[in-house]
Amino acid sequence: MIIRVVTSNKVYNLRPSPSFVESESKSPFTIMAAIKVHGSPFSTATARVLATLYEKEVEFEFVPVDMRAGDHKNESFLSFNPFGQVPGFEHGDLKLFESRAITKYVANEYAEKGTELVFGDSKKKAIIGVWMEVEAHQFDPVATKLTWELAAKPAFSMGATDKAVVEENEAKLAKLLDVYECRLAESKYLGCESFTLVDLHHLPGIHYLMGTEIKKLFDSRPHVSAWIADITSRPAWSKVLAMQKQK
Amino acid sequence: MIIRVVTSNKVYNLRPSPSFVESESKSPFTIMAAIKVHGSPFSTATARVLATLYEKEVEFEFVPVDMRAGDHKNESFLSFNPFGQVPGFEHGDLKLFESRAITKYVANEYAEKGTELVFGDSKKKAIIGVWMEVEAHQFDPVATKLTWELAAKPAFSMGATDKAVVEENEAKLAKLLDVYECRLAESKYLGCESFTLVDLHHLPGIHYLMGTEIKKLFDSRPHVSAWIADITSRPAWSKVLAMQKQK
Ligand SMILES: N[C@@H](CCC(=O)N[C@@H](CS)C(=O)NCC(=O)O)C(=O)O
Ligand SMILES: N[C@@H](CCC(=O)N[C@@H](CS)C(=O)NCC(=O)O)C(=O)O
Repeated sequence: MIIRVVTSNKVYNLRPSPSFVESESKSPFTIMAAIKVHGSPFSTATARVLATLYEKEVEFEFVPVDMRAGDHKNESFLSFNPFGQVPGFEHGDLKLFESRAITKYVANEYAEKGTELVFGDSKKKAIIGVWMEVEAHQFDPVATKLTWELAAKPAFSMGATDKAVVEENEAKLAKLLDVYECRLAESKYLGCESFTLVDLHHLPGIHYLMGTEIKKLFDSRPHVSAWIADITSRPAWSKVLAMQKQK
Repeated sequence: MIIRVVTSNKVYNLRPSPSFVESESKSPFTIMAAIKVHGSPFSTATARVLATLYEKEVEFEFVPVDMRAGDHKNESFLSFNPFGQVPGFEHGDLKLFESRAITKYVANEYAEKGTELVFGDSKKKAIIGVWMEVEAHQFDPVATKLTWELAAKPAFSMGATDKAVVEENEAKLAKLLDVYECRLAESKYLGCESFTLVDLHHLPGIHYLMGTEIKKLFDSRPHVSAWIADITSRPAWSKVLAMQKQK
């Protein structure tokens, strides 16, 4: 048995002594994952962080937060995120929140490990930065509202879907996807020719929308549709979906 | 007369020959600012970029976009930003949009010039990243809605202020500012002990809100209030306000 402990810049492959194997309580060291993610795999923001860690092949401990019981508003969780939103993230004594700040930190901190998720010279990085902002400011607000109306409300019997909200945001998404269709006709992925954090950040939102009537907006645009088939079939994303099934 | 041309990694101080001074049309070189910003100084997103360029002491050409005439939806502007929103940004053959992607590019590209706007080791940068996301996802949507209802609508006679929207967003902003008040009690600026892009990104939104009834929310919180007095008095920000007055 080899226990792998990943720290910020080293990987230790620890071979426990026989006495350790015989009795774990006598272990001379405590095994603690260097990274802990607090959240729910059903939360889009949490799923974004989980997908990044799987892409980077970085080990972590997942600490479920019972959102139905309101645990994200407890004193202890508020010490991670004063806004009481998942995910919370720990790396040793560093505590972070806001999913995209976490994914960028992980992508940079583990630049050499797993999938390279942000790269290129300063100009290429700037273009990736533009599309990162497009996801955050144009895609995410629209996707969140549609997911709420069309997936969350029916699933949790939280009232009737607001048709006006759906209509307004469907129109916005259609326009946005026209821009994506053009972009993806000239570039294999949104940020550049390779898969990056830009594409990854879209995954949780796309996943939920593909289970609703909104799917038609994606399906009717060939480049968008091929892009979605590609990014949703990544092994790292399958691992996030598997975590949803375990719950 | 010395003409300063700033390129990505060199500053040329050109001393034109007498013939150049006599007749600019005979100039052997065309003077073109390496950086061009297309937009309106009244637009919060444009102002964010202008403030960054002034902080970095980077020369640029400002190209006004007549938004009242709808020029941001013209074919030529759409080549900068397919979403038809200002600002657009050029640096040589690099074209960017999305204000925060532009400010990050400028801050990194001109790291050695003017005010250092993003710095520290990877952990410090990660914390700055968290607060950068807080501005983008928590402050900006609320500030934009309040500015629309309380400043834009009355100024341009665009219909009655929607009181329900004001009430909802005022409550959200109050909660957000409680978190800022705690943060600013322990850290001089939001991202770290020094002024960074995080604080700068807030400036355009704060500027408009300080001219509305929302000012009371800032004034009633001593650390927030001191922070606002500090960041709004920066010379770079005064230069952006001066551009608004010229228009
Ligand atoms: N911008 C934040 C958003 C976080 C967020 O909205 N989390 C949701 C779950 S996806 C949450 O905790 N909602 C509960 C609440 O807001 O009270 C991020 O990207 O981390
Ligand atoms: N997220 C974008 C927002 C840009 C934006 O909303 N620009 C406004 C002016 S502040 C605009 O062009 N509005 C006109 C429109 O949306 O049609 C950024 O930060 O650059």
